[in-house]
This record gives sequence, C-alpha cells and structure tokens, in this order.
Amino acid sequence: MTIPSARTLYLAEWVVPIVRPPFRRGGIVVEGERLVAIGGEAELRAQFPEAVVRDFGEAALLPGLVNVHAHLELTAFRGMLEDLPFVKWLAVLTRLREGLSAEDVRESARAGVLEAIRSGQTTIVDVGATGAGFDALCESGARGLFFQEVFGLRSEDAGESMRGLIERLQPLRAHPCARTRVGVGISPHAPYTVSARLFRQTVEYARAHALPLCVHIAESRAEVEFVRHGQGEFARIYERRGLLWHAPGVSPIRYLHDLGVLAARPLLVHGVHMEDEDIALVAQSGATIAHCPKSNAKLGHGVAPLPEWMRAGIAVGIGTDSVASNNTCDLLEEARFGLLVQRARRASPTLLSAETMLRLLTLEGARALSLESRIGSLEPGKEADFIAVDLSGAHVQPVDDPVAAIVFSARGSDVRFAAVGGRVLFDGASVTTLDEERLRARLREIRTRLRHRDALIRD
Amino acid sequence: MTIPSARTLYLAEWVVPIVRPPFRRGGIVVEGERLVAIGGEAELRAQFPEAVVRDFGEAALLPGLVNVHAHLELTAFRGMLEDLPFVKWLAVLTRLREGLSAEDVRESARAGVLEAIRSGQTTIVDVGATGAGFDALCESGARGLFFQEVFGLRSEDAGESMRGLIERLQPLRAHPCARTRVGVGISPHAPYTVSARLFRQTVEYARAHALPLCVHIAESRAEVEFVRHGQGEFARIYERRGLLWHAPGVSPIRYLHDLGVLAARPLLVHGVHMEDEDIALVAQSGATIAHCPKSNAKLGHGVAPLPEWMRAGIAVGIGTDSVASNNTCDLLEEARFGLLVQRARRASPTLLSAETMLRLLTLEGARALSLESRIGSLEPGKEADFIAVDLSGAHVQPVDDPVAAIVFSARGSDVRFAAVGGRVLFDGASVTTLDEERLRARLREIRTRLRHRDALIRD
Repeated sequence: MTIPSARTLYLAEWVVPIVRPPFRRGGIVVEGERLVAIGGEAELRAQFPEAVVRDFGEAALLPGLVNVHAHLELTAFRGMLEDLPFVKWLAVLTRLREGLSAEDVRESARAGVLEAIRSGQTTIVDVGATGAGFDALCESGARGLFFQEVFGLRSEDAGESMRGLIERLQPLRAHPCARTRVGVGISPHAPYTVSARLFRQTVEYARAHALPLCVHIAESRAEVEFVRHGQGEFARIYERRGLLWHAPGVSPIRYLHDLGVLAARPLLVHGVHMEDEDIALVAQSGATIAHCPKSNAKLGHGVAPLPEWMRAGIAVGIGTDSVASNNTCDLLEEARFGLLVQRARRASPTLLSAETMLRLLTLEGARALSLESRIGSLEPGKEADFIAVDLSGAHVQPVDDPVAAIVFSARGSDVRFAAVGGRVLFDGASVTTLDEERLRARLREIRTRLRHRDALIRD
Repeated sequence: MTIPSARTLYLAEWVVPIVRPPFRRGGIVVEGERLVAIGGEAELRAQFPEAVVRDFGEAALLPGLVNVHAHLELTAFRGMLEDLPFVKWLAVLTRLREGLSAEDVRESARAGVLEAIRSGQTTIVDVGATGAGFDALCESGARGLFFQEVFGLRSEDAGESMRGLIERLQPLRAHPCARTRVGVGISPHAPYTVSARLFRQTVEYARAHALPLCVHIAESRAEVEFVRHGQGEFARIYERRGLLWHAPGVSPIRYLHDLGVLAARPLLVHGVHMEDEDIALVAQSGATIAHCPKSNAKLGHGVAPLPEWMRAGIAVGIGTDSVASNNTCDLLEEARFGLLVQRARRASPTLLSAETMLRLLTLEGARALSLESRIGSLEPGKEADFIAVDLSGAHVQPVDDPVAAIVFSARGSDVRFAAVGGRVLFDGASVTTLDEERLRARLREIRTRLRHRDALIRD
C-alpha cells in the first residue's frame, strides 16, 4: 500500500466543509493521511505552489459519507427477499445463509464494500456473523467498524455463546488493520435472539475490553409485543422451539436500560418504536442511533421518530441496512428518503432540511461512532476521508445550492472519487482496491447456485 | 428526421414485456415506428436473419416509462424553493417566473425534456402556462401530452380567460406534431385559481373540441379547507385581493363532480386528500389520476391513498411533478418512493410490489392517458417506445428478478437507451435531438440572472 507523501490539491466548483457554509471554486490540500488546508483556489495555489493538482470541475468536494449500519455479508441476497412479512423474512434469510460457503460470504461482503465505496461511503459500520465484513473492509481500504454478532436464546447457553464470540473476536482484534482503520465491536443481536444473561455478559465483556456495542432494537411491532407482553410471532416461535421467555413487560429500550446495556452507550439500530420515555432514556444514557429509513419502510416497520431524537440531542447517523432489505446501498437516496418520509408523515413542508440530512450523513454519523474528532468534516488536521460528487448531470443542473443538489438531486452514481486517509479508493472508473470484474462474476455464480438450492429445498 | 426503415433486432439479458412475465436472453424487433416481434434470441435471429442487431448485454429491455405529470417550464428553478410552506412556495414560484423571458422558459422546458429522456421517459405529460413544453416535446422526439394551463379567479373574467386560452391553443393544435406524437389538452389549474364559471367553460370547450382535461386537485389541506369551509390561507389571499369566494362546502373532488368536470374524465393530479366517497366518485366517472408521491411528501401534503385507488379500479400513473418540488425527474426513484412511503405509513411489508409499481410506470400510466392500445407494453403492433436499463452496476447485481432490480435498485442514470416510435432519442451518451452542452450553459446563465434578480427584489 503506497500513500502519496507529496501534497495534493483537490479542487472543485463547490466545497462543502459541513462545519461552515459551502463555498465556490475552492479545495482542500492533502498530505499523507491528513487534510492540511481548505480554502479558495487562488489562496491554496499560492500557499501550496508545489502541490499536485486534481480539479473535479462541476462537482462538490465533501467529507466521505458515513454509513452507520450495513450487513455486508448479505449482498448476494439482493432482490431475493421481496414482499415478505418480517418474521418470515428473517426465516428465509436464515435458510438462504445456510446455502453460502465461507468463501461465498467473503465474496458477498466484498461486493457490499465495493458498492458502498462507489456511492461515496468512506466509513462503513458492518454487523456480521463472521469476520467476512471485517476482512472486506480491511482489504478495501475503507474506514469502518465491524461488530461481531452474537446470538443465544437459551439462558444456559450464554457461556458457550460468549466463548464462541471471544474466539471469533481474537483474530480480528489482533489484525493490524484493527489498530488503524477498522474498529472491532460486539453486537448482541436483538431481544428476541439473545437471552438476558447473554446481554449482561456481552456488556460486561465489552466494558472490560473497551469494545463498542451495537444492538438491533425496537425495530418491529412483533418485537415490542414480545418484550412488553410475551406475545405475538416471536413468542409463538419460542413456544414451538420449547424456549423459555419471561417477558420483562416493558418497552425494548427500557429492557436494554434495565439490563445495563444502555449504560454501555451502544449504537442502537432502528428504534422505530420508541415512546417519549424511551427517547429520554437513550438521550440520558449517551447511546447513539443508526437510522435506516428505507429498510424500516420496506419491511413495513414504520417511520422512526428522527425529529424527536434530534431534539433530544441524541447523536444519529444514517445506515442503509443490508441490500436484502433496501435493496441498494446509496446514502444519498437514503437521506433523501429519510427527509421525505418524515415530511409525508407529519404533513410538514419545513421539517428537516438538506443541510440537516447532509450533516447526519457526515459529522453526526461520525459523532454516533465517536469518530467526530477524526472524520465527518473537511477541517485541517482531520483524516483525508473525502469524496467528489459530480453536479453536472442533467438531473442536478442548474446548481447554486450544492447541499440541496447533493441531498435532493444527486445519486450514488454521481460520486466520482473517494479517498480514505488520503488513499484513493475510487477514481470514477473503478474501485482501486478490489477486482470488480472477478467479483461480479463470482456474485453471479453464487446467486445461481443459491436459487437452485433454494428451489430444491422448497420443492 | 430519418426513421430507419430496415428492421432492427434489440437484444438484452432480460426482456420485460409487462403483459407477460420477464424472460431471459431475448429481444424485440422494430420496423419503422412499430414493434413487430418479441421473443427469445435464437427464435428472433432465425426469423429476422437480415435485421441489424443491437445487443445491450446485462440490461433489461422494457417499454418506455410514462411520466403522467411534469412542469417542464420550471426546470430552471430546481433547488431554489427549499423548505417553504405550500402557499409561500406558490408565491415564490410566481415571483421567480416573472424573472424568465419567453426564451428562458423555452430553454428551461428543453432542459426538462432532456432530463426526462435520459432517465427513460418516452411519454411525458406536461402542464404549462406557455407552449414551451409542447415545443420542447415536439423538438425532442418524445411522445407526450401538453396541457395548456388556464387561470382566472374572478367569475366575470372567465370569458377573457377563455379567449386567452383559445388563442394559445390554436397554434399548438395546428402544429403537425399535435397530429402524431404530442397531444394537446386544457388544464384549468385548481379550485383556488379557477372560478366555477371558468371551470364550466373549459369543460364545455374541451368536450366540444374533444380535448383532454387535467386538473390539480385535493393536493393540500389548505385547498380542502378553502373548498369545504371557505377558510385558511387561500381564503385569506382572496380576502386581501378583494375576491369573492362562495365555498361550495364539499370536498374538492365532489366540487369537481358538481361542476361537471369529473364527467369529462379529466386526469386528476395529486388527490392526496380523498375520502372513500371521493374515491368512489372518481372511479364511477372514469377520471384517472396522476400520482406524484415525492412532490406530495416534500411539500408536506401527505401520502395519497394509492392502494385504495387501485382497489377501486382507477387508472393511475406516476408523475414526477416539477423539479421545483421534487427535485429530480426520475420515475424509477419515484416508483420506489411511492411503494416505500405506503409501506411505511401502513406498516405493511407486503403492500404493493415491484411488479405493481413497474406496471404503473408503463401500462397503467398509458391507461391513465387512454394510450394503452399504442404504448405501455412490449407487444407486436405497438409503437416502438422502449428503453434499455443497464443492470450490471454494483448497486444492482446480482440479478435474477429484473423487475425487483429495476424498481428497487436501478436509478435513472442506469438507462442506456431510449427510443420513441423506433427513433433513437438517447444512445447512452447523449440525447440525440437536443444540444446538451448548449442547454447546460444556457440554464446556468438563466439561473445566475434569476438569483441576482431575486436577491434585488428581496433586498
């Protein structure tokens, strides 16, 4: 891996620093892994006459986008799980996963990272059952955070689940990449797949080893019914499988609070079904939220209380979730959808704004991961994680407000360049760190095999 | 204009005829303006050995998309009207329009058509104050329907409004293009801008001259309040301007019914606020609906009852509305949004489907315009209006369900080819009938002037 040590001056028609208003004809100077200057073209050219110049023209330079929730392993399933009720969707997903070899899972995760980088994501938070997502992030040069998932419905199996978790974590934490670009954390999956005891043990372990935590919570009505009343689809599954469940009789968020999970300041994924009391609990705890509006809509979960979270001061980032439930990994469309669905639901034409949404995609997303001192804005001293979004398209022009153009008109495919820590990962033609052609062919092979196997199982 | 008279065989990995299930490795044969055959590759090659072959590879061939509602003239305003309450939005739009010369309006409409064609729209329904949209559609080679708008708040001015309307209509109806590709109709704008008398006179005129009608209706709560109770923001504007308004005291749809407008089977735009009784009235009348979910969301109007319309058997098409309220003209994203916002609102993971939405974008859209015998599906005898959507992108792969891929993953920028009546309008690089570079430069000029003028007015 070679990181250019000379200075490079990146210029564009628009610069969007996030921490201050956008400005015209300017750029940033990158030296090694860092952003060292930002300003107008003339000023930067005068100050850095020796810098190599790259001019993106009718484009915007902005911080790389932060995807706070993905499941990279599931990329091979895109388009295979349509129009299914959530619990059925989970069951089909589980069945499909059994058809993937370890190597298939790795290819699937690589394809996911490829898509994410191409659409301008420079930091990706992945949750996975295997370390495939971690490896793919490391290989790709992207920044990220990998949460190792842990499951365990039976209280008495908590010890075994923990041993399995620790075994999986060790090689990841020892990997050199874990000390630089890709953090490692733990994700006890959800209240309907993790026993109370296992929740407590994962929190204890995470605290002891200073590992971040991530939990899927308050996603579906079925989950709320299960936790509050011990009823509904999840309760029926428990019953069929002879599993014990003592419903705590509270909201899923209150349940996490009572278990001591909130106190560990986890990244909470979804949170669609939160009452005012839940929001207050999250705000007080300092936990943060990964908001996945398209996945929540497509799976019929509803619309999460984003404006209320923000009013309560909770750090919120936007996530795409997996393409098995989205079916695309494009944070620009995700933010646009997130704004529009709130306006539709609240019948308000002024709720949220392009500026707010772009902040969620960058600096707030970074804050939700405690990375705001390193990434999320264009400021000297920060890591040189940045992208160029072309604004010359017929679907974007004319432009005199680059933030409105980026959030309301641009698409993932308008991203022309992405760098992480100064290293170019996407140059507008291809991702420099992955073999796109090979991956596409492998993904197609995997898919053909999956369909064949799945058809056999269902026959 | 030269239309190739020889046969061309268009091939792709997927063919999506709409009227029957998609199939693999096949294509269509086009002769002159018509589609003459559809089938598997081997069969078509054997049957048409002399045909010129064009193979789109990893792509889907499907009917051209039908945009049932646009305001092409407003393209220059994209991104200038953010975060405004609806009535204020209308006021700012009116102020901005005064800053455009007739030639500016024509360029703005051309830019709108360019964007639409590039994103796979082969039939575009435009509503405009001037004939700029009609001319742009004619020039571009697209199929379309142009509705000349008419306004008139004062009952006593209805005669004058009608004379103005007829004067504007005459050159359009006499244009050779009006006999082939671009129909002409009338659009009395909305209940708060058109007097009851003017509504009646436009209907009479439309019936006498067999012209289609189009009305913006039941879009905002403000409109419902105005029509039902004579109150709210529109009532206050009337009062300030000394205009008389006798609120009919019924829903906007019932009002149109009582005026005899519904009986003329208009294309109703928006219809966000419709009760069951309204839906029944529309269904009985045979009127059709232009559904614009993103515009409805962004302006805070809410979510229209799409599933209820469809259950009632109403022909519904999807429209992008203007980019002043969207801010992009991409029917693929529009349909995706339209599905997701319904699932979010109804908390249903099975409501609507990719197949349903693709039908709305093609055959149902055609039916909403009474064009279903000519366009909207790939069938021998129909006009050769079709597109190729690339499915090889990292954001789309792997694909084994092309309809899910098109509706849930593809974007306007994945469209690689568009033809109308056999004539190639977009070849993947540029729109063949419009000068893109010149248009972009003109649009930028217009915008700079607009911002300058608008800043002066507001100072």
